[in-house]
Amino acid sequence: MASPENMHNRPSSQEVDGQKKSQFIEMLENRWSEGKFVCVGLDSDYAKLPESLRDGNQRDAAEAIFEFNREIIDATSDLVAAYKPNTAFYEAYGQAGLLALTDTIWYIKDVVPEVPVILDAKRADIGNTNDGYVKFAFDECRADAITVHPYLGKEAMKPFLDRADKGVIVLAKTSNPGSGEFQNFGDGMKLFERVAQNVNDEWNYNGNCALVVGATYPEELQRVREIAPDLPLLIPGIGAQGGDLERTLEFGRDSRNQGMIINSSRGIIFASSGDDFAEAARRETLKLHNQISAGLSQL
Amino acid sequence: MASPENMHNRPSSQEVDGQKKSQFIEMLENRWSEGKFVCVGLDSDYAKLPESLRDGNQRDAAEAIFEFNREIIDATSDLVAAYKPNTAFYEAYGQAGLLALTDTIWYIKDVVPEVPVILDAKRADIGNTNDGYVKFAFDECRADAITVHPYLGKEAMKPFLDRADKGVIVLAKTSNPGSGEFQNFGDGMKLFERVAQNVNDEWNYNGNCALVVGATYPEELQRVREIAPDLPLLIPGIGAQGGDLERTLEFGRDSRNQGMIINSSRGIIFASSGDDFAEAARRETLKLHNQISAGLSQL
Repeated sequence: MASPENMHNRPSSQEVDGQKKSQFIEMLENRWSEGKFVCVGLDSDYAKLPESLRDGNQRDAAEAIFEFNREIIDATSDLVAAYKPNTAFYEAYGQAGLLALTDTIWYIKDVVPEVPVILDAKRADIGNTNDGYVKFAFDECRADAITVHPYLGKEAMKPFLDRADKGVIVLAKTSNPGSGEFQNFGDGMKLFERVAQNVNDEWNYNGNCALVVGATYPEELQRVREIAPDLPLLIPGIGAQGGDLERTLEFGRDSRNQGMIINSSRGIIFASSGDDFAEAARRETLKLHNQISAGLSQL
Repeated sequence: MASPENMHNRPSSQEVDGQKKSQFIEMLENRWSEGKFVCVGLDSDYAKLPESLRDGNQRDAAEAIFEFNREIIDATSDLVAAYKPNTAFYEAYGQAGLLALTDTIWYIKDVVPEVPVILDAKRADIGNTNDGYVKFAFDECRADAITVHPYLGKEAMKPFLDRADKGVIVLAKTSNPGSGEFQNFGDGMKLFERVAQNVNDEWNYNGNCALVVGATYPEELQRVREIAPDLPLLIPGIGAQGGDLERTLEFGRDSRNQGMIINSSRGIIFASSGDDFAEAARRETLKLHNQISAGLSQL
């Protein structure tokens, strides 16, 4: 249980060059300045872990998931811009999953505190109800940022947006087939464009906002970058989902050739289903890292 | 941790009068046929529980929250259409909160299995990732229905929609101030209308869908009822949020003067902050129940 002390001593966002900037954004910028853009999605579904970790019921799910993540983190942390555990894969296993999730994030904070952790929770409720999710994400889990749905509007999301020290990453155009059903709704301006615009112009009063745009929709990525030239973009959809890296870099970069958090989940963490999973994860992370470096140098 | 057995022996939706109907909808219809429309929102924030339950650290949060809910349930279960715990208030307390949540729902299943439980989790991710939330809501928690965001579209939500035995309650027009920022986006047709239409026409292939519409927006409630004449509507916003009951009943009812799940949370569970909280909760539930009965009889 979170102690009330966790609620105090929160550093707020800093004024840098006259602009507010959250700790989360600063952490990201430090990663980018080292040429690191890869986000490893810790979608560590217990059912997909290597046999040896699940063997013989000697370990419970919490221990197995944490062990898996720990090895992935140890093998990749010098290469990455961020880690992104998706809560769905942990909540599926109830308390054991929740324990694995918090242990994983606390481990990252312990060994590589300079690497931000994005809790991919896609939460959003109204007003004070969000206080519970804020507490869950930032005090219980100690994440640096959370992904949220835009549907309820800015006023509902103030408990997130007011956390000037953290990051609030709003879904704009998601990578999945069929994401256009509502996201491309609208004559003229589309909903995802309106979301990007409002987040850029109105939600970002603490300099702590970012947007999700799938690599599978390069034209929409380009539009979002036009609308929000300086916001960080969390970009899933490279690899298994078929997003094109070259176009992602061209359309997703900001004016400093930075501003991107390029996520790969299954393609990295399940690159091998054997005991060499961590080694394979490093190999795939390095491969993507090198592809990004090469791609950016050619722009 | 959910055992694999939980995944089997799932009853599917029934064909009734040539139309598919989920178990969740059947449970609701049975409540409605008894004239019960009140949904008690179990937004049981530990910090707001009566002093005596939180006293002296003799109980941990899990036990205190469960005890509070148990007394509320015992005092109200003969009057209600459904219970609706909101996950935010539980996740704020980590594993203890999660334990309280599952214990609460299991208790309802034990003592009043005829009363459906709506997990107000407002979840939504893409494709197979939702399997984790499906497992969390329906296997770990044993809820009968879950609330979801529409933003990612039908294709992404299939893991929920395919659970023919359960209910999928989609946010259309939420009760909060500022909900129009995106929900009323659009020239001509508004986004919330498109959501209602698509859920009614395309998402409901298993007869297990419902919509959320706030009582604070009676005109939008009327529009949603026109678009989706037969879908159950979960209607928050009565009471503390200022929604008008008379107009809610007039605009929210279906052709049989039913079809509504009328939620009150704080107004019921925190009606008294003293040791008589359960008694006070019953009094407020009965009051709302009687107001609804009187209102419907005058239509």
